[in-house]
Amino acid sequence: MKDQEIIQPRVLKGFRDSLPSAQIPKEALVSTLQKHFSSYGFVPIDTPALEYMEILLGKGGGETDKQIFHFTDQGGREVALRFDLTVPFARYLAQHEHELALPFKRYHIDKVWRGENPQKGRYREFTQCDFDIVGVDNAESDAEILSLMASSFEKMNVKHARFHVAHRGMFNTLLGNLGVENLSVDILRLVDKLRKIGEQETEEQLRALVKNERTARAILSYISKEDEKEPFETTLDRLAALLGGENEHTLRMRTIHSYLKAEGIEERFLFDPSITRGLDYYTGIVYETFLEGSEQIGSVCSGGRYNDLASLYTKTHLPGVGSSIGLDRLLAALEGAYDYRASDVLILNTDKSRYPEAIRVAKRLREAGLKVALFFEPKKLPAQYKWAEANAIPKAIILDRDEEGSFTLRDLGTRTNAVVSIGEAVALLKKEQP
Amino acid sequence: MKDQEIIQPRVLKGFRDSLPSAQIPKEALVSTLQKHFSSYGFVPIDTPALEYMEILLGKGGGETDKQIFHFTDQGGREVALRFDLTVPFARYLAQHEHELALPFKRYHIDKVWRGENPQKGRYREFTQCDFDIVGVDNAESDAEILSLMASSFEKMNVKHARFHVAHRGMFNTLLGNLGVENLSVDILRLVDKLRKIGEQETEEQLRALVKNERTARAILSYISKEDEKEPFETTLDRLAALLGGENEHTLRMRTIHSYLKAEGIEERFLFDPSITRGLDYYTGIVYETFLEGSEQIGSVCSGGRYNDLASLYTKTHLPGVGSSIGLDRLLAALEGAYDYRASDVLILNTDKSRYPEAIRVAKRLREAGLKVALFFEPKKLPAQYKWAEANAIPKAIILDRDEEGSFTLRDLGTRTNAVVSIGEAVALLKKEQP
Repeated sequence: MKDQEIIQPRVLKGFRDSLPSAQIPKEALVSTLQKHFSSYGFVPIDTPALEYMEILLGKGGGETDKQIFHFTDQGGREVALRFDLTVPFARYLAQHEHELALPFKRYHIDKVWRGENPQKGRYREFTQCDFDIVGVDNAESDAEILSLMASSFEKMNVKHARFHVAHRGMFNTLLGNLGVENLSVDILRLVDKLRKIGEQETEEQLRALVKNERTARAILSYISKEDEKEPFETTLDRLAALLGGENEHTLRMRTIHSYLKAEGIEERFLFDPSITRGLDYYTGIVYETFLEGSEQIGSVCSGGRYNDLASLYTKTHLPGVGSSIGLDRLLAALEGAYDYRASDVLILNTDKSRYPEAIRVAKRLREAGLKVALFFEPKKLPAQYKWAEANAIPKAIILDRDEEGSFTLRDLGTRTNAVVSIGEAVALLKKEQP
Repeated sequence: MKDQEIIQPRVLKGFRDSLPSAQIPKEALVSTLQKHFSSYGFVPIDTPALEYMEILLGKGGGETDKQIFHFTDQGGREVALRFDLTVPFARYLAQHEHELALPFKRYHIDKVWRGENPQKGRYREFTQCDFDIVGVDNAESDAEILSLMASSFEKMNVKHARFHVAHRGMFNTLLGNLGVENLSVDILRLVDKLRKIGEQETEEQLRALVKNERTARAILSYISKEDEKEPFETTLDRLAALLGGENEHTLRMRTIHSYLKAEGIEERFLFDPSITRGLDYYTGIVYETFLEGSEQIGSVCSGGRYNDLASLYTKTHLPGVGSSIGLDRLLAALEGAYDYRASDVLILNTDKSRYPEAIRVAKRLREAGLKVALFFEPKKLPAQYKWAEANAIPKAIILDRDEEGSFTLRDLGTRTNAVVSIGEAVALLKKEQP
């Protein structure tokens, strides 16, 4: 290569590299979720990153449309990077409907892109994690999505997640009773902002919208809860009374709740009538998830039941229920909760002639499920310790015994040594794995 | 939503959806590899899908440049989708060199894009899987990459992979001895095509290139092996003699081979002097991997040692050694070797009032590590069996006993039933997991 100026290494605005300290916990979470979704019989799919612009735009006009990252490709086609995993899934369902057995339970964890101007903490490239059940409309599938949400957070070791559930059909009943169902889209969007703009501002905007103080107050009294921790069924009873009695939606909620009780997870769920989700395609249950003590970061897992997902691309009626975990947001909230550890142990290189022995020891430790690094060169020990520290490796092995299979195990934190056999080393190191 | 024409669901030319039957084995392979790479102390990184065109083009002029999928974005910037994981890694190393401790061992498994015209079996979007050790130049790191290749195929349960290794430095010594080192780039590319165009065509083109029959024959005799299975060290002895004796490169190969022997994996490796890798940045060992009986699909894992990866973006000298598994190609070759099974067992819905019990049974089976699906509606049994078959679910549970925790387990293949406890069901089902 000729001598030349170097090219300034940089990434595009709104994009970022992921260093190992961020990527290790992310891969661990994704792997946990994949395994857990599979345990419910959900299957993975994938779709292209790039699609026809007309497919992703759909009927157009939505909030997300302005954010679509689009281009003209070499062939003059209008193409765009997917901005979520829902629209490609709708297209996918229509395109493959004869290859899929309904109900179809899929998950999809991958990147999406937005062309919006990046703000603090928001990026143009981020990872979504969606799971949906398509082809049925019943309490059983609603309850399974909620069960999968609760158990996923359990599996991710996030104990302080609280699931806020409401029902769009119940809210629409209220709007119908009040004679303002024609304003439902605007009212939904307004109520959805409650957490952001506060109760007073919501009331003022509501009044301006419905032009009737009593109606505004009725809506506000429906979505407000005096006691945040009011038990699910108490809230449901209260709301049913406000709606003038039970209907198919309140009964659906009662059945869903009975299934949560059957599983013993009902205490993780609150009936929160202020949850509406801004998007107008939801028709049944809707939900958001907040981390107790970190509510300000917003919902880390949201979704709901929709009546007809793929109607833009097929005449087949496909109701469904689904949820989406905001992985990057969740990881940011959990920062520091996960160990960044490149290896469990480093085999030091103190005597080059021992390297074949080091290879054999590493092999046996790896077979026992340990993460093992070898130091490649017989450098001075401080340099080797420094490398171990930079990689957050807590222990080191020094091959210094005549008998192969026995060596010194050093704790790099306490700087203490112990002579151990391979079997003893495995037991010790396994016990301290994160 | 108003009545409207449906949008024809379709994907861009050269792109494809991944159905669960393809995505399940792919995720399983990726997960196996992530875990295995980690066991060697390799850490994951990620880089943006989209980069500045000037970064990805680098010095330009290469074969891959024509294939870069590039666009002008909304801000008028020339941007491109990454076409491999090597160039972004070089940029990443330069940009983060003060945050990384050398040697840096990373893996990166993700999608790349090519704008070339798609041909049979080639797509514009595919997955690469790279692993590299950067910051050292020694036999220990060379041997670790080879060890990781061999054990990765072992872990993926691909027993018929054969690793063909050569050394670019040895080949350059030959060209130097013959006085044709100035033609080395063209000779490398030509020899790299040997497998495709055959020995005779290679000889003719070589003769035309070096304009000397004796030189052409000397090169050809160096790269040819009469006995395909000639032991590694025998080939090395023979080639060292052709080069006029041992030099630093032959000695490096001897040390690498001694480490493969220390690990007991030397029989998986052949010294194959016809391996040159077309790319001119390789300077040391080079390798390709063929599946015995499926050689025609080409190499499924290739790479080598390079002298200076990131020189376009930094003045820091960064030698390294790395390898890349062609996941999509490998999966195509292994098609059918993996079970597509959405769940291990389906709990049938024969009595709606039993659904809470079904939820509890499913929970216990999942906690035991099983994949369990619930049928949501009390449909007729043939419909439930049909769904199980479409999802390749081999067993069903019928809740039909008075005592909770005991039920009928049905083998959907043999159509035989047995009454079992939960504990017995777990044991039976675990035994038959793939």
